[in-house]
Amino acid sequence: MAARPLAQAVAELRDAFPPDRVVLDPARLEEYGKDESDLGTFPPDVAVLVTSAGDVQKVFSVASRHRVPVVPVAARTGKSGGSLSPRGGIAVSLERMNRILAISAEDLTARVEPGVVTGVFQAEAEKHDLFYPPDPNSLDSCTLGGNVAENAGGPRALKYGVTREYVLGLTAVIPTGQVLRMGRRTIKGVAGYDLTALFVGSEGTLGIVTEITLKLLPRPRFVSTALVCFRDVATAARAVSRVLAQGVIPRCLELIDDVSVQAVAKSSPFRLPPGAGAALLVETDGNDEERVFAEIARVAEVVQGEAAGEVIVAQNEAQRRDIWETRKFLSVSLKQLHPKKLSEDIAVPRSKIPEMVARSREIGRKHGLLVATYGHAGDGNLHANVLFDREEERPKVEEAVAEILRAAVDMGGTITGEHGVGLAKRDFIGYEQGEDLLAVQRRIRAVFDPLGILNPGKMFPEK
Amino acid sequence: MAARPLAQAVAELRDAFPPDRVVLDPARLEEYGKDESDLGTFPPDVAVLVTSAGDVQKVFSVASRHRVPVVPVAARTGKSGGSLSPRGGIAVSLERMNRILAISAEDLTARVEPGVVTGVFQAEAEKHDLFYPPDPNSLDSCTLGGNVAENAGGPRALKYGVTREYVLGLTAVIPTGQVLRMGRRTIKGVAGYDLTALFVGSEGTLGIVTEITLKLLPRPRFVSTALVCFRDVATAARAVSRVLAQGVIPRCLELIDDVSVQAVAKSSPFRLPPGAGAALLVETDGNDEERVFAEIARVAEVVQGEAAGEVIVAQNEAQRRDIWETRKFLSVSLKQLHPKKLSEDIAVPRSKIPEMVARSREIGRKHGLLVATYGHAGDGNLHANVLFDREEERPKVEEAVAEILRAAVDMGGTITGEHGVGLAKRDFIGYEQGEDLLAVQRRIRAVFDPLGILNPGKMFPEK
Repeated sequence: MAARPLAQAVAELRDAFPPDRVVLDPARLEEYGKDESDLGTFPPDVAVLVTSAGDVQKVFSVASRHRVPVVPVAARTGKSGGSLSPRGGIAVSLERMNRILAISAEDLTARVEPGVVTGVFQAEAEKHDLFYPPDPNSLDSCTLGGNVAENAGGPRALKYGVTREYVLGLTAVIPTGQVLRMGRRTIKGVAGYDLTALFVGSEGTLGIVTEITLKLLPRPRFVSTALVCFRDVATAARAVSRVLAQGVIPRCLELIDDVSVQAVAKSSPFRLPPGAGAALLVETDGNDEERVFAEIARVAEVVQGEAAGEVIVAQNEAQRRDIWETRKFLSVSLKQLHPKKLSEDIAVPRSKIPEMVARSREIGRKHGLLVATYGHAGDGNLHANVLFDREEERPKVEEAVAEILRAAVDMGGTITGEHGVGLAKRDFIGYEQGEDLLAVQRRIRAVFDPLGILNPGKMFPEK
Repeated sequence: MAARPLAQAVAELRDAFPPDRVVLDPARLEEYGKDESDLGTFPPDVAVLVTSAGDVQKVFSVASRHRVPVVPVAARTGKSGGSLSPRGGIAVSLERMNRILAISAEDLTARVEPGVVTGVFQAEAEKHDLFYPPDPNSLDSCTLGGNVAENAGGPRALKYGVTREYVLGLTAVIPTGQVLRMGRRTIKGVAGYDLTALFVGSEGTLGIVTEITLKLLPRPRFVSTALVCFRDVATAARAVSRVLAQGVIPRCLELIDDVSVQAVAKSSPFRLPPGAGAALLVETDGNDEERVFAEIARVAEVVQGEAAGEVIVAQNEAQRRDIWETRKFLSVSLKQLHPKKLSEDIAVPRSKIPEMVARSREIGRKHGLLVATYGHAGDGNLHANVLFDREEERPKVEEAVAEILRAAVDMGGTITGEHGVGLAKRDFIGYEQGEDLLAVQRRIRAVFDPLGILNPGKMFPEK
């Protein structure tokens, strides 16, 4: 950034907004430069706390005039660096736009501002006996706007789909200053291009979302959770396909591999049975209590021949929570084995799950590194974690990660199932999509952002 | 079309393709100029039967050189004129690209060419115990490529969603001649913009799809179908919300209003009970026979207080078929009341269904016209049919249709729930979406089709 345009931009922002909404304190800016991606700290030069679409228009007007980068940011729980400011500039924080504007039980829809925390919204929907299924791991702190930007998934995506499936309409301000009202309030609708779908997962590179219309479902009244143990990870991975082939789609089907099982043993109060080398976490839901239990039993039966012998079905809410805590804190537990890790987010066709799990650990072994794989096996989305101890090992860790990403693509998969490209994987998207497809995407981006001021350097490789 | 560029284009096409794949016979071209939209006949000047992406590239190359319009066409079952050639030019017929390339029961995916007939594909998937839910009314003749172009829906969309939800990836040739492989083969994936979603429902204006990767589900083993009768349409419409509010999402929830009931009485062998002024067609499905019946019973119970007293549950496949034939041929049955009709395809928020049904008939009454409303009430998608007898009445019929479309938008709805904009509604999209949104969409279109040769004059108003 040349200093002068930036200084002028800051001066104009201070004129346009009250002082408590323009952050210049370096310690606070430092916080705006962090996320959950392990990429490091990239603070903006200034952060503006917006409260309306009009505020965002003001920021774009200043930024356009001085060609200063603009980066949308909220809860900073992203895993791919989408909210970091590697080129400095203006962070637009949506954290104060956190109102739930309407929930309609009759229409099964809701209107929210982007800064609403996902878990808070889910709790509010439940009060109306409604259900918002997407459940990214960070749901207690991440925001719906961030979920839209990344097209967030989560364990329940197996049965219920990802964020994309629940976004009916969006209001966004694009860098030209236009306010676009995209999509619809109805369940169906096909007028014009599906710009809503284009925006979902666009990682804050096309515009800044200021209002979201969501689809809701009736809340399933019963949930049943079980942990099925296997002697090894290959057996567990094969069991995933067997379950789905039986015509049962549980709401979650999560794989926990042997390395992860070891980590759990070290750090969790929850005890896996002796001999358990890997596990599947299964969850079913519905409105008929017997049926929900019957489905869990059916899953257990389907995998019986290969199971390590134990199926632990949660008997109450406390046991359910224990099982889920084990899964939820795996990322933290793994640090008990090795203090550092680089975590991947590949997805492969379901039939390739056993091969992908094997290939990841083989790649690790080649580099002398332990790889722990867990994740949403039911839909082929695996988190492969390369573990290490010292910063000096990072080059070989990065090489292992690169090989894992390429292996996923070679198996017909993708470099990212739910975390996004952002800064973290921009150099790998070309391997998956090829130059023609990237060129078209860059041209679409330029339709919304002709000056290239919004989240520059993200999603596509630098030219 | 200036004659000379066209004549040169035709000459080049005859050089590039074998004679049996270049159609110049006026009678056959006439057929390529028709669809199910009631807009009239708009034949192309020439039709090319393509069999590969390479063929489509050749056509775009010729068309670009001579600035001749290109219009993709297949089964010609569209309801909005998307495959008509109002400016003549080259029709690219996908009818010979009708191979099912792969069905994977393990991955729950399939790869198909765009000319595969939807019903044929569904039958093939069933042989593998798999299920492709989208069921547009024309499924016995429409193609998957056409379904992708229009983002086709159908009765089962209520539980299973529309075509968009099942398209994982697409190969398309865009007018610049590039072959784009968009999307993925995996269930999840968020790398780059969701170009697949942008293409689905783009009505053949961004490119010509040559291969489709679809997501499949395990086939539900049991289906139960019932017809619930009501004394009048307002009662039936209100019952829709009551059902959904109980937490039951049947796979279909179709409304048949009083005018439609009269038409059925005149033309169908199926007899509604006396006193039935309107009906809901309900269908549930699943893998547990008892549960599937229990759900139908629950729906019947929920609406009991307002029902006309009769709930007819199909006892066997023949009765199921009878009930569905009644619904499927409503469009034809209505012609027994009045020989002509203009059929609309609005969608409104679910809570507005009773109001929208009432408003449509009121608009009809004002113009001295009968309006029959039926359709996918469960997701708010209604087909309002304005009936008439003589061509001279068309101006007032069109005025009534315009008022119905505007009323839907004013209630927070859309001008098209599943049939698309095409030629039929291009003058109404602006009322729903506004100029800024149309301008952005035109610019996106130009990214794919800088010369404006693909399906010109469709989807957006002429400038």
